[in-house]
Amino acid sequence: MQTIFVILMLGSVLMSSSAAEPRQLNLMPMPSSVQTKTGQLVIDTSFTVGIDGRTDALVQRSVGLFLDDLRRQTGMAPLDMKLTDAGQAKLVVHSQHENKRVQELGEDESYSLEINSAGAKLDAATPLGVMRGLQTFLQLVQTTADGFATPAIAIQDNPRFPWRGLMIDVGRHFIPLDVLKRNLDGMAAVKLNVFHWHLSDNQGFRVESKKFPKLQEMGSDDLYYTQDEVRELIAYARERGIRVVPEFDMPGHSTAWFVGYPELASGPGPYEIERKWGVFDPAMDPTEERTYKFLDAFIGEMAALFPDQYFHIGGDEVNGKEWAANPKIQAFMRAHGFKTNQDLQAYFNTRVQKIVAKHGKTMVGWDEILRPDLPKDIVVQSWRGQDSLAAAAKLGYRGILSYGYYLDLMWPASRHYAVDPMSDAAANLTAEEKKQILGGEACMWSEYVSPENIDSRIWPRAAAIAERLWSPQGMTDANSMYERLQQISRWLDGLGLTHNSSYEPMLRRIAGSDDISALRTFTDVVEPVKDYTREESAVVEATSLSPLNRVIDAARPESETARHFADLVNAIVAGTADAGAKQEVRTLLTAWRDDQNNLQALEDHSFLLKEIVPLSQDLSAVATTGLQAVDYIDRAERPPNAWAEQQFVLLDQAQKPKAQLLLMVAPSVQKLVEASSGQKAPPPQK
Amino acid sequence: MQTIFVILMLGSVLMSSSAAEPRQLNLMPMPSSVQTKTGQLVIDTSFTVGIDGRTDALVQRSVGLFLDDLRRQTGMAPLDMKLTDAGQAKLVVHSQHENKRVQELGEDESYSLEINSAGAKLDAATPLGVMRGLQTFLQLVQTTADGFATPAIAIQDNPRFPWRGLMIDVGRHFIPLDVLKRNLDGMAAVKLNVFHWHLSDNQGFRVESKKFPKLQEMGSDDLYYTQDEVRELIAYARERGIRVVPEFDMPGHSTAWFVGYPELASGPGPYEIERKWGVFDPAMDPTEERTYKFLDAFIGEMAALFPDQYFHIGGDEVNGKEWAANPKIQAFMRAHGFKTNQDLQAYFNTRVQKIVAKHGKTMVGWDEILRPDLPKDIVVQSWRGQDSLAAAAKLGYRGILSYGYYLDLMWPASRHYAVDPMSDAAANLTAEEKKQILGGEACMWSEYVSPENIDSRIWPRAAAIAERLWSPQGMTDANSMYERLQQISRWLDGLGLTHNSSYEPMLRRIAGSDDISALRTFTDVVEPVKDYTREESAVVEATSLSPLNRVIDAARPESETARHFADLVNAIVAGTADAGAKQEVRTLLTAWRDDQNNLQALEDHSFLLKEIVPLSQDLSAVATTGLQAVDYIDRAERPPNAWAEQQFVLLDQAQKPKAQLLLMVAPSVQKLVEASSGQKAPPPQK
Repeated sequence: MQTIFVILMLGSVLMSSSAAEPRQLNLMPMPSSVQTKTGQLVIDTSFTVGIDGRTDALVQRSVGLFLDDLRRQTGMAPLDMKLTDAGQAKLVVHSQHENKRVQELGEDESYSLEINSAGAKLDAATPLGVMRGLQTFLQLVQTTADGFATPAIAIQDNPRFPWRGLMIDVGRHFIPLDVLKRNLDGMAAVKLNVFHWHLSDNQGFRVESKKFPKLQEMGSDDLYYTQDEVRELIAYARERGIRVVPEFDMPGHSTAWFVGYPELASGPGPYEIERKWGVFDPAMDPTEERTYKFLDAFIGEMAALFPDQYFHIGGDEVNGKEWAANPKIQAFMRAHGFKTNQDLQAYFNTRVQKIVAKHGKTMVGWDEILRPDLPKDIVVQSWRGQDSLAAAAKLGYRGILSYGYYLDLMWPASRHYAVDPMSDAAANLTAEEKKQILGGEACMWSEYVSPENIDSRIWPRAAAIAERLWSPQGMTDANSMYERLQQISRWLDGLGLTHNSSYEPMLRRIAGSDDISALRTFTDVVEPVKDYTREESAVVEATSLSPLNRVIDAARPESETARHFADLVNAIVAGTADAGAKQEVRTLLTAWRDDQNNLQALEDHSFLLKEIVPLSQDLSAVATTGLQAVDYIDRAERPPNAWAEQQFVLLDQAQKPKAQLLLMVAPSVQKLVEASSGQKAPPPQK
Repeated sequence: MQTIFVILMLGSVLMSSSAAEPRQLNLMPMPSSVQTKTGQLVIDTSFTVGIDGRTDALVQRSVGLFLDDLRRQTGMAPLDMKLTDAGQAKLVVHSQHENKRVQELGEDESYSLEINSAGAKLDAATPLGVMRGLQTFLQLVQTTADGFATPAIAIQDNPRFPWRGLMIDVGRHFIPLDVLKRNLDGMAAVKLNVFHWHLSDNQGFRVESKKFPKLQEMGSDDLYYTQDEVRELIAYARERGIRVVPEFDMPGHSTAWFVGYPELASGPGPYEIERKWGVFDPAMDPTEERTYKFLDAFIGEMAALFPDQYFHIGGDEVNGKEWAANPKIQAFMRAHGFKTNQDLQAYFNTRVQKIVAKHGKTMVGWDEILRPDLPKDIVVQSWRGQDSLAAAAKLGYRGILSYGYYLDLMWPASRHYAVDPMSDAAANLTAEEKKQILGGEACMWSEYVSPENIDSRIWPRAAAIAERLWSPQGMTDANSMYERLQQISRWLDGLGLTHNSSYEPMLRRIAGSDDISALRTFTDVVEPVKDYTREESAVVEATSLSPLNRVIDAARPESETARHFADLVNAIVAGTADAGAKQEVRTLLTAWRDDQNNLQALEDHSFLLKEIVPLSQDLSAVATTGLQAVDYIDRAERPPNAWAEQQFVLLDQAQKPKAQLLLMVAPSVQKLVEASSGQKAPPPQK
C-alpha cells in the first residue's frame, strides 16, 4: 500500500462523496497518514462491531462507549448496532496486547484503520490504540445521500508526543465532577491522554483526606471531591485512555491547607481560605520535621488513591515573605548555608522528592523545582518556555511544555497552534535530548471560570493544542485547523460540552430579556482582554465571591465573526474579493452600525449592560468608518487625508479595552481605511 | 390586605420596573392571587435565606436547592447567598408543620409570599408549600437596571387539584435516569406533584426484581433501573415535592413479563420482547392460582420499594384473543358464569386489588378497571374523558383525567390548556361528587421518543397542563398562557431540559452539514402529524429498533413561527395590522418562497432530506400564493376568481400530510387568499 501524507501536501483533505460535491474530512487531530479511496461504508441499524482475538475488558468497554456515541451521532436506538462475533462484524477491532493494570506514560497508541465498502478493520498494538482509532472512525461518519457512511480510507496513525494533557485548576473555583467528566469526553475525542488535576491552592483544598480531614473540612468551603468520587473519575478517565495526574501545590499556593493545619505554615497564623487572586505569602515551613512527617503520611494516602505513576507537587511561585519574616527559618538557612529562598525551596523539594519516591511515584513540578541535585527521573512542567525545557533536557531531565498553552490567557487558537514544544532552543537538541521532551499540557487556570463558562474557555481551542501534540510537526496550516475546529466544536456539543450552548442563556441573563439579537451581535465581535489584563484593569478587585455573569464572562475567547470578517477584508484589500464577499462586508458593517440603537432599548433594563455602552458606541462608529472606507474603495476614490487621520484616531481609541473587552473588528476596519486612503495608521497611543 | 385576582381580570399581570417599561410577571402556573406593589427587592451576592422555627430536613434541603437555582439563574458563585439565621435573612421561610415521612395525596401545598424592598417572607402550612413558594420566588427574579431583583408583591396561592401528574412510559423506549431527573426538575418548576412511572409494557420490563430476576434479565434488553436507582429517583422526587406512583400494566400490555415467566401467560408461548407498537394478544392467565401467587410476591416486593400509597396496575387494552384461544380459560369462564372478557378481567382486577390492599396500597387503574364490585378507595385514571370520570364519581370512585393530556398526540398547548377535568358531565356533579375528581396527568407515551427528543415532546406544553391543574378554573386566556409559556420554556432550559437545545443538533445530523439555516426555516413551520396518524400513515412500520432521526422527530409538536404568523395574518385580515406587521409577513413569506432553492443544495447530500422535498415544494408554492394575496390586499384589488380557485386547490393539496408532516402556515395563507378574493375555500378534499 502506498501511504501518502495527504494533509502535509493539501492543507486539508478532500474526498468525493457519492453526490456531486467533494467533502472535507473533519478529522482532528489529523492522523499522520491518510489515504482516501473510492466508495464508502454505509452505517445503518444493522452495523456491528466484533473484537478479534482475546477479549480484553477495556477493549470491550471502549467498543460499548463507541457504539453509544455512534448511536447518538446517528439517532439510532439502543437496540441497534450490536457487538457480534468478529467473523460477521462490519467493523473488526483487534488489539495485539492486553491493557496494563494502570495506564502508563509512553504506551503504544498507534493504530491502523482500513475502511472499504464491505467493512472496516481497526488494528492496534494496545487497547489505547483501539480507543484512538475508534474516535477517528466516529469523526469519519457523515450523513450522505445513501445513509450514514464513512468514506473508504486507509489511515496509519500514531501520536507525536506521549504526554498530551489538559490541566484544570479546581482550587480557585471548584469544578463539579459532572463538568470534569464531560471535559474528559472532550479530551478523549481529540486524543488527549493526561488529565492533570490541580487539586489544591490558596483558595481551596479539594480532596477528601481521611488522615487529615481538616484539610477538606476547613479548607474547601465544603466544595471537595470524596475519595469515592476521585476513584469514579479515575475509572471514567481510564475507560477513555486518559491518565489522571494529581497536583498538590507546595510549599506555596497552600493557604487552604493551613486553615486546618496552621502548624504546617511558616507564619504565626491563624489562616483563612484566600478569597483573592494572586501570589500570597503563606508557605510551608521547610525547616520543621513535622512538615515532612505530615507530607509523608499525606502523600502516602494520596499515592494510594491516585494510581498514576506521576505525582505533581507544584512548586511554583513562592514569594518567600513568610520565610523572611520567621527568625527560626532564617537561622536554619544560615546554619545550612542557604543563601536564597530558592536554596531553601530546593532543600524542601529534595526532601519531598524522597517522600514521593518512597511511595513509589515519580515527581512532577513546575519550572521552579529544577535544580541539578534532584534525581533525573523527575519531570519538569514548563510555564517558562521551550528554552527552559531545552535546558532541562540538556541536564537529563524530562519535560512537558505548558508555556503557550494557557487557555485562561484568551489567545486565539492559531496562536496556541503555532507553539511547538520542539521549537526555539529545543529545536537544536540532539535526538537523544529531544526524547526528554514528552509533550505538553493545555492549562485552564480558574480565576474567571465557573461550571457555566469553563467549557467555553477550554473548547474548542484545546483541540488545536491536541492536534499540535498528536499530529506531525509539519502540520501548521491554520486555515485547515480552523475549518476542522469548527466541525470538532459541533462534535463536542454532541458529547454534552456546553461551550456553545451556554452562550445564549448567559446573554439572556445579561439582557434580562429573551430578545438578545442586539446583544448577540455585539458580543459576537468582542473578546475578553488578553494575558493578565483582566486582573490589572479591574475596577473592583475580583475574588472567588465575584459573580461571573458579565459580558466578559460570556464573550468567547476568540470571535469567529471577527476572524471571518478579517478574511473578507483581507480579500478586499488584496483585490480578490468577489461581489458576494463585498456584499457580506457591507451587511456586517451595517448591522454593527445599527446595533448601538438596538442595544439601547435593553440597556435601560439591565445593570449588566451599562458597562458596555461605550464599546457599543465604538462599534457603531467603527462600522460607520468601515462603510465609508468600502465606499471609497468601491468608487476607487482617494478620501481626503484629514478623513483618514480622523478615522485612525477613532480606531486607535476603539482598540483600547473597555469593560475589559476588545473590539475585534476594529483592526480589520483599520485595514480598510489604510487601503482606501493609501495611508498607514500611526502606532497605537498609550 | 386587599387581595385581587389580577389574572382573572387582566389576562396577564403587568408590573412597573424601575425603568420606563412595564414588565410582565412570568409566573407559571399563575398563582390564585397576586397583588403587585411599588418597589423591588434587590438580590445580590449578600442575599440570605433563613428558616423560621423548627429545622425540618426537607425545608432545609429545599432552601439549598433554591439557592443553587438562584445562583445559577444570576451567575453567582457557590460562596454567595447563604443560609443564615431567620433574624438577619432577606428571605424568611416558615413552615407550620413538619413533613410527613412519605408524601401524601392532598397534603396542604398552599403558601403566601410577601416581598417588599427590605425583604421577603414565605409562609406555608407544610414543607410542600415552601417548595411551591420558592419556585414562585425564582420565577419572579429578573435582571433590572439596579441589579437582579424581584418586584414587591403579595401572593396567596394554593393548587386547584391535589393530583397533578406527568406520566412517562419507559416501557416502549427506555428513558435513562438522568433524563427522568431533569424532567422531575421541570415538573417541580411548574408545581406538578406526581411522577407516574409506566414501568412495564409489551416492549420492556424496566425494574429490577430480586424475587423474579428473569423479569429484567429476559424482558428488558438490559435496559432497566436497579432498585438502588429506583430509590435514588424516589429520593430525588421527594426533595422536589413529587410523589412517585409506579405502574405495572396487567393483565395485558405484559409480553415482556412472559419472556422470562411464560407460565404467567394465557397462551402456549414461548414469548419474545415485542418490537412493534400496538395492542397485542398476550395476557396473564387470570384462571391460574399461580398467577396470583406470583403477583402477590411481586407486588409485595414493589410495594416495599415504592413508598407511595398508590399503586397503578394499568388494566387497559386487553384484546382477549389469548383467552379466547385457551379452552381451559373458556371452561373457567363458563364455570364462573363470565359472559365476556370484561367479566374475566373484572375477576382478575378484584383479585389483584385484594393483593394490592394486602400490601398496604391503594389501587389505581385505567378506565377499563372500573366495575362497581371494586372497593370505593380505588382511583380511576381516565383516558376516555370527563364523562367517564363523572360516571365514576357518581359511583363514589375517585378519578384523575388524562384524556386531553396525551402529549404524544402532538396537540398545541392551547388545546391541552382548554381541557378541564371539571367540564362536560363533570361540571354537573354535586359538590361532594366533584371532590372525587382529584386532578389529572399529562401522559408521555413513548413509541416515538428517545432520550434525545423526549424533552421536546413534554416541554413546554406540559407547563400549560400544569397551570390548568394548579391555577383557578377561570384562567383560560390562551394568549397570556402562550406569552408566559415562552418564558417558562427558557427557564426550563436553565434546568438542563433539552427541548430547545436538542433541535439544532438534530437538524445538523439530518442536513449532514453545519449550515442548517434552510432546513431550520422549513422545520420551523412544520409539525408532526397529529393523534395516531403517524402509525396509520407509516410507509415502513415503525418498531422499537427504528431510528428516531427524521425531520418528524426533530420538528416541534407546535410551531411557534406558524402561530406567530397566524397572529399577523389575523391582524391583516381584520384590518388592524400596522406597517411593521405587514412587512414581517412579507419577509416571512419571501424566506419560505426561497427556501426550497436553498434546501436543494443540502438534499443531494442527505438521505434524510429526500422525503421532505414535496413538502418543501409546497412551502415555496404556498408562500408565493401568500405574497400574491398580500399584494392584492395592499392594492385593495380583487383577484380574478380563477386565481383564487386555483390557489384553493393548491392550498388543499399543501395541507395534506407529507413525510408525516403538516405545513402549519398553509391555513393562514388560505385566510389571506379568502380575504383578498372574498371567496371561501371549499371543504378539504379526501
